[in-house]
Amino acid sequence: MTRISALDVTDVRFPTSLDLDGSDAMNPEPDYSAAYVVLRTDDGGAAGCSLLFTTGRGNDVACAAVRTLAPYVVGRDVAELVSDVGALARTLTWDGQLRWLGPEKGVMHMAIGAVVNAVWDLRARLEGQPLWRVLASLPPEEIVRQIDFTYIDDVLTPQDALALLAGNEAGRAARTAALEAEGLPAYTTSAGWLGYDDAKVARLVRRSVADGFTMLKLKVGGDLESDVRRLRVARVAAGEGAHIALDANQRWGVDQAIAWMERLAEFEPYWIEEPTSPDDVLGHGTIRAAVRPIRVATGEHVQNRVVFKQLLQSGAIDVVQIDACRVGGVNENLAILLLAARFGVPVCPHAGGVGLCEMVQHLAMFDFVAVAGSSEGRWIEYVDHLHEHFTDPVVVERGRYRAPSAPGGGARLRDASIAEFRYPDGPAWTSSAQP
Amino acid sequence: MTRISALDVTDVRFPTSLDLDGSDAMNPEPDYSAAYVVLRTDDGGAAGCSLLFTTGRGNDVACAAVRTLAPYVVGRDVAELVSDVGALARTLTWDGQLRWLGPEKGVMHMAIGAVVNAVWDLRARLEGQPLWRVLASLPPEEIVRQIDFTYIDDVLTPQDALALLAGNEAGRAARTAALEAEGLPAYTTSAGWLGYDDAKVARLVRRSVADGFTMLKLKVGGDLESDVRRLRVARVAAGEGAHIALDANQRWGVDQAIAWMERLAEFEPYWIEEPTSPDDVLGHGTIRAAVRPIRVATGEHVQNRVVFKQLLQSGAIDVVQIDACRVGGVNENLAILLLAARFGVPVCPHAGGVGLCEMVQHLAMFDFVAVAGSSEGRWIEYVDHLHEHFTDPVVVERGRYRAPSAPGGGARLRDASIAEFRYPDGPAWTSSAQP
Repeated sequence: MTRISALDVTDVRFPTSLDLDGSDAMNPEPDYSAAYVVLRTDDGGAAGCSLLFTTGRGNDVACAAVRTLAPYVVGRDVAELVSDVGALARTLTWDGQLRWLGPEKGVMHMAIGAVVNAVWDLRARLEGQPLWRVLASLPPEEIVRQIDFTYIDDVLTPQDALALLAGNEAGRAARTAALEAEGLPAYTTSAGWLGYDDAKVARLVRRSVADGFTMLKLKVGGDLESDVRRLRVARVAAGEGAHIALDANQRWGVDQAIAWMERLAEFEPYWIEEPTSPDDVLGHGTIRAAVRPIRVATGEHVQNRVVFKQLLQSGAIDVVQIDACRVGGVNENLAILLLAARFGVPVCPHAGGVGLCEMVQHLAMFDFVAVAGSSEGRWIEYVDHLHEHFTDPVVVERGRYRAPSAPGGGARLRDASIAEFRYPDGPAWTSSAQP
Repeated sequence: MTRISALDVTDVRFPTSLDLDGSDAMNPEPDYSAAYVVLRTDDGGAAGCSLLFTTGRGNDVACAAVRTLAPYVVGRDVAELVSDVGALARTLTWDGQLRWLGPEKGVMHMAIGAVVNAVWDLRARLEGQPLWRVLASLPPEEIVRQIDFTYIDDVLTPQDALALLAGNEAGRAARTAALEAEGLPAYTTSAGWLGYDDAKVARLVRRSVADGFTMLKLKVGGDLESDVRRLRVARVAAGEGAHIALDANQRWGVDQAIAWMERLAEFEPYWIEEPTSPDDVLGHGTIRAAVRPIRVATGEHVQNRVVFKQLLQSGAIDVVQIDACRVGGVNENLAILLLAARFGVPVCPHAGGVGLCEMVQHLAMFDFVAVAGSSEGRWIEYVDHLHEHFTDPVVVERGRYRAPSAPGGGARLRDASIAEFRYPDGPAWTSSAQP
């Protein structure tokens, strides 16, 4: 019998604040970072990898939170563990003592997600398949068993979920073939960081459209007149070739969001993302009613399925933006994908940071094949940034994510990158040129 | 000039799981714990104390989160720091990197609250006053300046808050005198832990009523028939002398909460507390509409002012249960007290655990003197437990909290208790009799 022998956690930080890539109205100087997790087995075979993304300070707290979970997995029978990741997710989520630290939110919940994701990565590696294919091969009953319906069964029961999945089962093979042939649409955020000047925005927007992107995103919310100017520049540069979405990164209160978007409406943005606090379900509903027909999107900071449930049941959002590292891992994201499908709202995953593209593409591809059954009105966020640090970096061509074929969930860092960017003792942080 | 010289954090845990005090449907075996914080000054004078309460495992994560905040206070001019705690609260809450770990929720937010509370404790000690009196002596304009209205100004503007506080200013002196003479009503949870048998519940309920309590609370949500039986026992034992409130500790989904309360309605419970996830604003609204006239209460796990805002603006709750350690400290609790007053909803603070009574009484007393202006329909939770570890334990007599007169915010632990219960190396944890 093979057992889990260790849960290793490493603090890895990239000094991205040096060149303002990733700058927005709320995060002026992020250092994209990861609490990097490796589940090792005592036969020295496949290891399960995942990461908990942060923006720098506090990455050590994330590491501490993940380490707290080691006793729940170390020593476990690997075959049993990977055969029912949902059981582990429930054990961690409902632990009578740890639960006080959330419940189901913040650092502790993200740490649970990181461990859950590492077990899914391990399972996919053992099966020799990319995670999206592992998930998309599960029978509907098995997918339903992986989900914790607590607090959402007033709008989505296991029976509802089963019916939804079963209804889409016949088309899985055809959509898998389409996915492998054509991939899924991406949108790019690389053109519109708040720290870029107008000329750089125009140049990057033109290049993105030429590269085949049909959707671009601009950061807004710092200064209204500057937003008007940058959006005009981007709109002209994009021409008829691409939609432009906007992202305020929670900068506004409800009334301010409505007033600000009134000024930007003439540029016909495709959506406004994070117009206010991710916790404000009712506020999103008020904003959505006021800014129609501009869509309202949120999710990268939405803490769990309970808040997504309310955003959907109250019709507060038009676009669900799941994140691979925010909630309790793959299992809770399965619940969120099914909630979105139940309400007919498209999922456009949040990505960027470090490793988020590599991880979340698997969930989007599973969604396409087994849940939503469509790529209409759906794009996966793409940021051309830090992919070189992964053993299996995403491949985006002509504005589309190609379906990965390498085994696993995508989050495995290269050994050389870990050594270079380990915080605080890696050369990237000890050499005098760095912050 | 006096400066902050250190932010000390100690992991202190009490092995309360040994005798099932504190057991409820969600927390079967808590070990009440604290990330204990001491802000030291370089003149060796007064130190600022506070704690972040947890239920055991993960207390080390809470300690790590607090330690991350040391650079924001160590080296600061004490006089400047205590003169505007709101400025520090904003700096910590809106830090561009740390914010990713919440935002404004979970361990990181509780850690911010712990540091903010330590600074308020330091201020009160320097002024030689109990915290409630420091707060209740601030002019309305100064209280308003201490509050971050971001994300709540759609229902409560600084002008609204100022008008509310100014309207109650004339009565402050009389209410301060009344408070010092009579204290404020308490309710007790000590009689109704889920781990107690019927005979113990009956005996403790009778004793509580004899002791002067006009409100008692029972834990429910484990098993319906057992709840019916225990509630009947308690109802008989309490007689006409006291209300009985119920607490489900988030055990139910929305539909289950409604069905369960239908069975318990005959015993006329005063409120049902935490019937479902604290994140489910809409769910609380649905439950409240269904269980009337039984009141719905929540708050001890409500993560921040944004969620309280929605619970209040949508009329989802009848009772606001603030907690001293859950949100971003005194300053965010000031916002929550004002939101409750704006909607005319009484605040009945959550307490118990370790140190929560000692801390939250100050907020309730400030509320009585300066915000709500009434004690009608308001009780502060009281659990007769672990008070002996504090230098200034609460005094509850004839069912009422007496107004503390000792300087500070109440959370200072005795040195001997810290030494005994420090985890994992204190004698309480290294002796073989302990878990």
